[in-house]
Amino acid sequence: MSLQESGPSVAIVGVTGAVGQEFLSVLSDRDFPYRSLKLLASKRSAGKSVSYQDRTFTVQELTADSFDDVDIALFSAGGSISKQFGPIAVDKGAIVVDNSSAFRMVDGVPLVIPEVNPEAMDGIKVGKKKGALIANPNCSTIICLMAATPLHRHAKVTRMVVSTYQAASGAAAAAMHELELQTREVLEGKPPTCNIFKQQYAFNLFSHNAPVLGNGYNEEEMKMVKETRKIWNDMNVKVTATCIRVPVMRAHAESVNLQFEKPLDELSILEKSRADCNRDMRGSVIQIEAKTGISEDTAREILKAAPGVVVIDDRTSNHFPTPLEVSSKDDVAVGRIRQDVSQEGNHGLDIFVCGDQVRKGAALNAVQIAELLL
Amino acid sequence: MSLQESGPSVAIVGVTGAVGQEFLSVLSDRDFPYRSLKLLASKRSAGKSVSYQDRTFTVQELTADSFDDVDIALFSAGGSISKQFGPIAVDKGAIVVDNSSAFRMVDGVPLVIPEVNPEAMDGIKVGKKKGALIANPNCSTIICLMAATPLHRHAKVTRMVVSTYQAASGAAAAAMHELELQTREVLEGKPPTCNIFKQQYAFNLFSHNAPVLGNGYNEEEMKMVKETRKIWNDMNVKVTATCIRVPVMRAHAESVNLQFEKPLDELSILEKSRADCNRDMRGSVIQIEAKTGISEDTAREILKAAPGVVVIDDRTSNHFPTPLEVSSKDDVAVGRIRQDVSQEGNHGLDIFVCGDQVRKGAALNAVQIAELLL
Repeated sequence: MSLQESGPSVAIVGVTGAVGQEFLSVLSDRDFPYRSLKLLASKRSAGKSVSYQDRTFTVQELTADSFDDVDIALFSAGGSISKQFGPIAVDKGAIVVDNSSAFRMVDGVPLVIPEVNPEAMDGIKVGKKKGALIANPNCSTIICLMAATPLHRHAKVTRMVVSTYQAASGAAAAAMHELELQTREVLEGKPPTCNIFKQQYAFNLFSHNAPVLGNGYNEEEMKMVKETRKIWNDMNVKVTATCIRVPVMRAHAESVNLQFEKPLDELSILEKSRADCNRDMRGSVIQIEAKTGISEDTAREILKAAPGVVVIDDRTSNHFPTPLEVSSKDDVAVGRIRQDVSQEGNHGLDIFVCGDQVRKGAALNAVQIAELLL
Repeated sequence: MSLQESGPSVAIVGVTGAVGQEFLSVLSDRDFPYRSLKLLASKRSAGKSVSYQDRTFTVQELTADSFDDVDIALFSAGGSISKQFGPIAVDKGAIVVDNSSAFRMVDGVPLVIPEVNPEAMDGIKVGKKKGALIANPNCSTIICLMAATPLHRHAKVTRMVVSTYQAASGAAAAAMHELELQTREVLEGKPPTCNIFKQQYAFNLFSHNAPVLGNGYNEEEMKMVKETRKIWNDMNVKVTATCIRVPVMRAHAESVNLQFEKPLDELSILEKSRADCNRDMRGSVIQIEAKTGISEDTAREILKAAPGVVVIDDRTSNHFPTPLEVSSKDDVAVGRIRQDVSQEGNHGLDIFVCGDQVRKGAALNAVQIAELLL
């Protein structure tokens, strides 16, 4: 982040939280230009000093008057704060990039992953003196779609079955502290402190703590189902998800099973000719596979070329993505790329994805959206 | 386990390992009758004393002569020991229940989960003076099929997509110790000791350490694919699995997505009449659903009635199965039972399963097989 007279005036709402702190880190890393910077939080945190680059900022209390002369407001202070202050900021002419779920599914509010659907926010720009709301998707959705979208563009995903392995960070900094505290307690033979979660988290895992809805899915899972449809602008894509909290600090992992509608074009051409050559040797089976499948080699090449994605897929040394390896990293890592043996006609792939929940799952994605506004 | 003149002569191979110790615990819990008990292990462990019930046993070195006058031999000392000594024991007239993967896929060797396919070992009995091999399935397969089979019997599973959350115990006691040691080290800011696994396990997770095969699946995953077909005696059932090691001590969890061929009979009748009643109110949609689906309520009732299965599925209090809750327990716990929103015509269910890897995943299942031999 760098001070520039021509840059936007930026406000961060919820600066003292885990994602708020990461906003500062990402803005600095990416040398985001700014004319002024306003750090906002609850009354409790107001007055605190925050050192940032070579300046010291004082955290101000978030009020209805906070957004005078703000161009971009990055919100990460929970859904109720967003609902209360987001529309106020917009009325004052700010463009709000909201990390909460408050506005994600509201018609007319773009839900954006910059590598996936930047076109959804076409026409929203700083300098037009016109406020707007843009929603940052759920962390699990972002991490999944960073890997699934490049494949979807080539072969059209019709169905995804996702199982998540979600880190403590998704439940905020206090949950990370509780996981560490509990782990120490369990190792010392003491009963674990259960303030954030109602059960032992250390050396355990459990179904995501989001409320369970009438259809048996929890809110986290239905976010993946619904947000995928909105981001892909495809009301027909079928998604099911099972979201599980695992004792890992700050990066999520996801096991994703993909079902494709269309054959992959390049593959069809490439393997069709191979199939023709091999017809005498192996008969018609190869031809059928070549015409209807997405090969794992092609998928790997597509993913290697995808922005924000790194492929870690070394079968020989059994080296694949892990949460630890992507922690504090920008890129989402993909591996275990393989043709699904359970789908006829090679219409399916299994992949395993890891991404930093605080960074690409939240702060980085929001800052990338802000960059598109300039 | 109780001493009875009429009981079988029992040998335990690999008694000093985690599963070997659990054999003793399970035999005692279930009051398994025995005439004599022989505890076998490698030369290194020979001579050690093991207190069991009110007697003391001396561990003997496993040799080709170990199986004279043994009726039932429970093996859990790894595949190479099973391959070397299993056939010798059978030649001496023993019935071997083998916990390794050495013989699971061999034609003619029954692969048995007693609640699922006891008929596969029909005719094999102690007292016939005829040796035989029976294989204990892979732990992940057992835990998955304990929940999937009762549903399969009613509505025929055509495809399963499984993602596992596997405990340290599956890689033996040393892996459990390493997870504990590493966790202490990481909490103290020290680099983690990586002897068993080549990477940090504490506060991390990684793709299962089994070798990766030519098709990109690791051996653990292909065990689930192939063993399911053999146990269900259904070469057409499609299975895909992604096996992940998580930092949990001794119980596995699995997220299982099920696809069914047939409607559930009772449900069809029950909901057909409901649908007729409601036709005027909600039209034909209900009818279509009622005729082709397996309802989650019916699934829950089927699972509640299944032997060896306990249903933990409290949506209101967000209480579902966890590895910790099933640790050292016999039953496999199932929850998160819900109609899959991604499958047309309600042909699918999502479930979440937890089971003790050492117990039902290994020792208990083997002892239950032994009970069928009497």
